Amino acid sequence: METTTVTLQETIETLLKNKKYATLRDILTTMNPVDIAFIFEDLQDEKMPILYRLLPKDIAADVFVEMDDDTQQFLIHSLSDTELKEVLDDMFMDDVVDMIEEMPANVVKRILRQSSSEDRKKINMLLKFPEDSAGSIMTTELVILRPGMTAEEAIKRIRRTGVDKETIYTCYVADNLSKLRGIVTIKDLLLAEDDVKVSDIMDTNVISVNTFTDQEEVAQMIKKYDFLALPVVDTENRLVGIVTVDDAVDVMQEEATEDIQKMAAITPNTDKPYLKIGILSTWKSRIPWLLLLMISATFTGLIISSFESALAASVVLTAYIPMLMDSGGNSGSQASVTVIRALSLDEIEFKDILRVLWKEIRVALLCGVALGMVAFLKVWLFDGVVMGNSAADYNVALIVALTLIVTVVAAKILGCCLPMFANKLGFDPAVMASPFITTIVDAISLAVYFLIATSVLHL
Amino acid sequence: METTTVTLQETIETLLKNKKYATLRDILTTMNPVDIAFIFEDLQDEKMPILYRLLPKDIAADVFVEMDDDTQQFLIHSLSDTELKEVLDDMFMDDVVDMIEEMPANVVKRILRQSSSEDRKKINMLLKFPEDSAGSIMTTELVILRPGMTAEEAIKRIRRTGVDKETIYTCYVADNLSKLRGIVTIKDLLLAEDDVKVSDIMDTNVISVNTFTDQEEVAQMIKKYDFLALPVVDTENRLVGIVTVDDAVDVMQEEATEDIQKMAAITPNTDKPYLKIGILSTWKSRIPWLLLLMISATFTGLIISSFESALAASVVLTAYIPMLMDSGGNSGSQASVTVIRALSLDEIEFKDILRVLWKEIRVALLCGVALGMVAFLKVWLFDGVVMGNSAADYNVALIVALTLIVTVVAAKILGCCLPMFANKLGFDPAVMASPFITTIVDAISLAVYFLIATSVLHL
Repeated sequence: METTTVTLQETIETLLKNKKYATLRDILTTMNPVDIAFIFEDLQDEKMPILYRLLPKDIAADVFVEMDDDTQQFLIHSLSDTELKEVLDDMFMDDVVDMIEEMPANVVKRILRQSSSEDRKKINMLLKFPEDSAGSIMTTELVILRPGMTAEEAIKRIRRTGVDKETIYTCYVADNLSKLRGIVTIKDLLLAEDDVKVSDIMDTNVISVNTFTDQEEVAQMIKKYDFLALPVVDTENRLVGIVTVDDAVDVMQEEATEDIQKMAAITPNTDKPYLKIGILSTWKSRIPWLLLLMISATFTGLIISSFESALAASVVLTAYIPMLMDSGGNSGSQASVTVIRALSLDEIEFKDILRVLWKEIRVALLCGVALGMVAFLKVWLFDGVVMGNSAADYNVALIVALTLIVTVVAAKILGCCLPMFANKLGFDPAVMASPFITTIVDAISLAVYFLIATSVLHL
Repeated sequence: METTTVTLQETIETLLKNKKYATLRDILTTMNPVDIAFIFEDLQDEKMPILYRLLPKDIAADVFVEMDDDTQQFLIHSLSDTELKEVLDDMFMDDVVDMIEEMPANVVKRILRQSSSEDRKKINMLLKFPEDSAGSIMTTELVILRPGMTAEEAIKRIRRTGVDKETIYTCYVADNLSKLRGIVTIKDLLLAEDDVKVSDIMDTNVISVNTFTDQEEVAQMIKKYDFLALPVVDTENRLVGIVTVDDAVDVMQEEATEDIQKMAAITPNTDKPYLKIGILSTWKSRIPWLLLLMISATFTGLIISSFESALAASVVLTAYIPMLMDSGGNSGSQASVTVIRALSLDEIEFKDILRVLWKEIRVALLCGVALGMVAFLKVWLFDGVVMGNSAADYNVALIVALTLIVTVVAAKILGCCLPMFANKLGFDPAVMASPFITTIVDAISLAVYFLIATSVLHL
């Protein structure tokens, strides 16, 4: 997109240095809050308050919400109490709570001091929900209508109160006891006759979640039903908040990243973008699994040791160890990753285990036989005949091919069963991915290899 | 959630068998279209048309859209021309196009025959866009306003024309030449005074994409800016459609699944859920990489072969091969998967390669030294002293520890660089994940191992 070599970032920094504040203000009014927030993140600290005070009042809070934690914290320190109060008043409750969760105690105190007592109560309520629950990501700013209102009255109410609400597109109909009775979209209201009652056009089959529902399930429901927002109720079915689609999108992306990290033997670390995570923090998320898997590989080593005499008698067998280990590991990780993803997208559940197993066994046989045949030709024809390695004979080729078939089948069975059992037992199936399964399959493939070898070669 | 052992599916099937149509109709009116579609997918074929005709008219098309391809195709065959026309008229254009793309030619012909000539023109236009482009996922049903309208006129227009539009919450302001001039939300319109001009409240800094923009980029933009819809323009900046957030959510999920599959050496296969993909199709998506990686492992085998004499002289070295190969592979896949995900979330780009490299080298040294120390103690103290294996002496422990440090550093460097270069060269970085990198790292780790071993042990 860019055609000049000067970036907008550089232009803004130069204008700041030259104190061209009017020009800066003009530029800022043409920009989206998200893009302005990025500019802040790469700015020198002392320039931040200056640029912040140049922002048009109506987008200052939107820009603030989009900044990363460090930038927010620095800005809060340089804002006056009045300025801070203005920002907080313009922010949605769920964004305030998100921010507070990442701030040190003294900043949190200052934020709470600048909030109204009603907001303070709401913030404290939201802070109490467990991390990753619907309650922790919901917002409490929603439009509530009464069943007895007419469409015209409802629209008037929305026009009067809608400015502070995160979404006005889905409105919630509740009775005097705050019990959720139905949902009506602003589209329904606008397209209805003025004097139609809300209770006549509202949808009473409301799909809602509890404050303690896991955020991943909330996101999947919003995706499944194509909702713009999902109502959250407490244990007495009283409407307490909504989760909007933009937050669900963030949850989905975060959960996908976490799954990908777990599949690669990384303890999830998704709070910050890659380059902002410190060296020690990255190390801490990577070293536990590396150590555990390294120690587990001892078993594979033990198997090799126990067949030392066979290996000494036929050294050529050693050369095919990497090929067998890698093929087994890859076959297992294909199955496990496919099953883990299908579990997390709710495509399969534990009761499908026999169907999954039956499918994976058939695929494994097809894969195993294909690999076995190619490996046979490679060892016997290429290594033996073409390359002239007399040790790579018909027998060795047969041993390698048979081992491959057994290994691939074992790998795919483990690869599909372990994640499903982990899920059933309440563990995260993503941990049962390639690295973990590779370690087990390595041991199996070598044991099979040496057992077949000793019996075929009579070692 | 379920407290009885009889599922809704079973109840509906029993009611169908007993011809309790009135009861069925009552049940269907309480259900969400998405859930009804699931019921259809597990129904006997001959029952489908019966249940379909019991659906309330206003949700029949919504249910139809949510069904899988096979169910849709079967239903189309059993619907009369009039019934088919009714469904098509109630469907949004992007859903019709999605469906047509999966149908055999004779069904497509029948669908096009039942569409109005205007719709047929639009469908043909949409079908021409490349798969995975903004044009292929956009819908053409949107609310277009003129800059000169007042807020009151705009709301009137929305009330008159909104019923057929996929979203009425974001409206697009275009001039007589269809050039996109601005965006106004229905919230802005409702909260404005009746006689305010649309051009005075519209946002003129419109973020839009081209019809050929990749769908993954479209989804990332919708996520980044928290949009409910993103306008799509042609090369002359004429507004031709919008992509709505629900379609962006589907794209995000599909792209994450594709990345996960590629990282596990699977050719992406995301058209259908896991259990609906045939055995041969699954095999075809898995065997190419298995074969390629197996053949590549030959190089690792060659390295072992060329150090055969060293291995024969010190057989204990063989026992640590799996530990070294696995640790190298895991270290490499941690780095590659992290970098691939950061690339696909736009957290890093090629110009950051030196920062990424510098970070990974420091993390690699920390990981390598930690693994090396533990491995040294394991070989020397545990295998040697505790288990009494006299071959596992101080020298062998040192060789293993040094090899680990070098391997981990090499693995992390390759793991971060290969995906970034692949991305730069226009390839998909996800292919440069664990299996591919493991194969290279295996060869490196064994070469390093034997080189260090021969020089320390003077073999």
